[in-house]
Amino acid sequence: MSTKKRQLRLGAFLMSSGHHVAAWRHPDARADGGLNFQHFKQIAQTAERGKFDMIFFADGVAVRDRGRGTEALSRTSVVHFEPLTLLSALSVVTERIGLTATVSTTYNEPFHLARKFASLDYLSGGRAGWNLVTSATVAEANNFNREKHMEHTLRYERAKEFVDVVTALWDSWEDDAFLRDKESGIYFDADKLHIPNHKGEHFSVRGPLNVARPIQGYPVIIQAGSSDDGQELAAQTAEVIFTAQQTLAEAQAFYAGVKKKLAKYGRSPDHLKIMPGVFPVIGRTSQEAKDKYEQLQELIHPQVGLGLLSGLVGGVDLSGYPLDGPLPELPETELAKSRLKLVTDLAQRENLTIRELYLAIAGARGHRTILGTPQQIADQLEDWFVNGGADGFNIMPPYLPGGLDEFVELVIPELQRRELFRTEYEGRTLRENLGLPRPTNKFSTVAASREQVAV
Amino acid sequence: MSTKKRQLRLGAFLMSSGHHVAAWRHPDARADGGLNFQHFKQIAQTAERGKFDMIFFADGVAVRDRGRGTEALSRTSVVHFEPLTLLSALSVVTERIGLTATVSTTYNEPFHLARKFASLDYLSGGRAGWNLVTSATVAEANNFNREKHMEHTLRYERAKEFVDVVTALWDSWEDDAFLRDKESGIYFDADKLHIPNHKGEHFSVRGPLNVARPIQGYPVIIQAGSSDDGQELAAQTAEVIFTAQQTLAEAQAFYAGVKKKLAKYGRSPDHLKIMPGVFPVIGRTSQEAKDKYEQLQELIHPQVGLGLLSGLVGGVDLSGYPLDGPLPELPETELAKSRLKLVTDLAQRENLTIRELYLAIAGARGHRTILGTPQQIADQLEDWFVNGGADGFNIMPPYLPGGLDEFVELVIPELQRRELFRTEYEGRTLRENLGLPRPTNKFSTVAASREQVAV
Repeated sequence: MSTKKRQLRLGAFLMSSGHHVAAWRHPDARADGGLNFQHFKQIAQTAERGKFDMIFFADGVAVRDRGRGTEALSRTSVVHFEPLTLLSALSVVTERIGLTATVSTTYNEPFHLARKFASLDYLSGGRAGWNLVTSATVAEANNFNREKHMEHTLRYERAKEFVDVVTALWDSWEDDAFLRDKESGIYFDADKLHIPNHKGEHFSVRGPLNVARPIQGYPVIIQAGSSDDGQELAAQTAEVIFTAQQTLAEAQAFYAGVKKKLAKYGRSPDHLKIMPGVFPVIGRTSQEAKDKYEQLQELIHPQVGLGLLSGLVGGVDLSGYPLDGPLPELPETELAKSRLKLVTDLAQRENLTIRELYLAIAGARGHRTILGTPQQIADQLEDWFVNGGADGFNIMPPYLPGGLDEFVELVIPELQRRELFRTEYEGRTLRENLGLPRPTNKFSTVAASREQVAV
Repeated sequence: MSTKKRQLRLGAFLMSSGHHVAAWRHPDARADGGLNFQHFKQIAQTAERGKFDMIFFADGVAVRDRGRGTEALSRTSVVHFEPLTLLSALSVVTERIGLTATVSTTYNEPFHLARKFASLDYLSGGRAGWNLVTSATVAEANNFNREKHMEHTLRYERAKEFVDVVTALWDSWEDDAFLRDKESGIYFDADKLHIPNHKGEHFSVRGPLNVARPIQGYPVIIQAGSSDDGQELAAQTAEVIFTAQQTLAEAQAFYAGVKKKLAKYGRSPDHLKIMPGVFPVIGRTSQEAKDKYEQLQELIHPQVGLGLLSGLVGGVDLSGYPLDGPLPELPETELAKSRLKLVTDLAQRENLTIRELYLAIAGARGHRTILGTPQQIADQLEDWFVNGGADGFNIMPPYLPGGLDEFVELVIPELQRRELFRTEYEGRTLRENLGLPRPTNKFSTVAASREQVAV
């Protein structure tokens, strides 16, 4: 048997008109993409043609309007599909690509979440993935009966218990519980029903789930939090980490740190894939890539840039500070700690003014920007991949559909030539394509002694 | 202009393998229908071929296992898709039929609900409908951190406020708020954003919604509660009532009673469609219909019948009473009052034993059973329709897909011959097909003075 060369995992991170904050204004972007199903159908099918492991939707349960002002807000794309309904529709027009959605543990109940993802897993034939976030804005809190956002540590405690409940609900039924024997009239084997009966600090959920065990056992669990609490939760429960890293040295430190934590939870380093975000701007020459990037940057209205920056640093109003002066000392809030650090580090490292800083992050929003030819971009991805910085990447096209078309037509073939990326899907499920094991049922007494079979 | 003859509205009420409690055992039923997307795709397309106004999914957020025992439960179809994910997928494989899902106001948050239905409305081009229920079982309470079910009156108070919040969120944006002008960089007209900022007894929800105003203004609002509280809420907020009525006299009283309530809320009787449930068993002769019904009835295991009855009367355990004796006096619980009354009335009126009672309700589960030829069934529907008992019906095929195929192939053409039912869809949206007005935006100052336009 030949040992197959280790290959990249790739996610396509799809935002309405593209990832750049002014994407919707780009001549080749669909300005109404956020609520246009034909748009999402086209880009999901493009990503599948490119053999991406998954498409990935960010999410928030609010219009993030704080610290921006209406003027800035009115220049931003603010309305879009809810991801689980959109992915359910996309399951019908795709066949092999993974379908992953962000859902917050802070503003949801485990029963609903377990059920909807199990339902999506059946609709898609085992292609569902859940990106667990704990939410980070007051705007979201205010849509759910709260004056303030839940405190960081408490949010992560709740998230940990939330995962326990959700996985127990997914395990309510053993894989082979459903006999559906018309003759005897037995629908399921009662010995293979396990009522979770969870009673904990944050949740009291009896179960069982009213969906069978998902095709994948559990949908793939993804996390994006890179704070200490976030990393610890990921090491315990996540199978993919979507992270923002600016330099190879930082990426290597993050990669090594998280992989090292897995041993104490009895997990193999191979069973957690680390995928930093990448914002690629592709040109036939370096200069063309730079020009394309500048074209996008020029579309950013100063108020939009400032609003974006305010959002990333936890909602602090920056409008009182001079645009061409330095970033002031910022208070640590109970919001997204890791993003705050990333932004302040960048400002210090490169000695940026507020204006320079918002321009630097407006494209990738804290993720890594790569400008260049397809070969140069492949070089950069390969460099991180072979040098312990990443297991793969979440690709954030600057504008859509064009930015994804270019990546699939120009960069993917280059990665395939280097044997760094698949030319055909290996498996039927997202889990199989990512190379992740199918979880055993925690309630099954015979799980260890028999081979796991798909429903 | 010719005045068009008043026509029936028809919903197709689709449960996994069919509406009969033993449907999954029927030789022509799909036993695994609940989690089989190809099954639902086929039946949704059949209903659309039949020009049904809408397909309709019941729902509960639990396996309803109380008062049944595991033996009875293990003989019942208990796992199925979550309706909003399923309808989102079905939106892609249908074009004109309405897509309506049951969602409880007791175990959800208004922001999530407003958002998901708005998202479905965009996915489907304006075909979404929400069947509002307040939930009625302890099994559901136990999945959401509660020991007991919420008290009936409180549930309806919450539901009323819930609708206020949801409609305010749907009105966050005026229909023409989104300019998306690439040149000026203005995405929306700030004067057409209205932040609901709701603060009430049960909810505090700031908004705005992160989806544009639904294509239909609001998705169609349906209700199924027939208690006094339920009728009052329906008169205030519902556009369709799905109700269980056994006799024409009862149906007429209900119909007249609810329509009369509309005036005090300033609403026209035409703007609330009353659609009783009907469970049709179709034969080439009356005898064939009776035989088909008996074939289904014989598939009911006694424990399943008893469990079903217990569930309908609020979870009371009936296993201690003789099957061939009368129904005991039952306590009124905080659960579904109208169903309890319906069941006890039926037992008294027809002097039924427990066994006879569960057999009588096992098919239609409290709704009206009609056995007969296509002509006889059309006669019955016409009788109620022309005599003030109904504006239309929610058809509950006994088993699927066969039971729906027969209705579409045999009964629909008969109704069309009588000019009681459409031969082509009149409109593009569910609202247009049902003949319901598009709601004006409650925050819009110019709503009254300009024509409403679709987004």
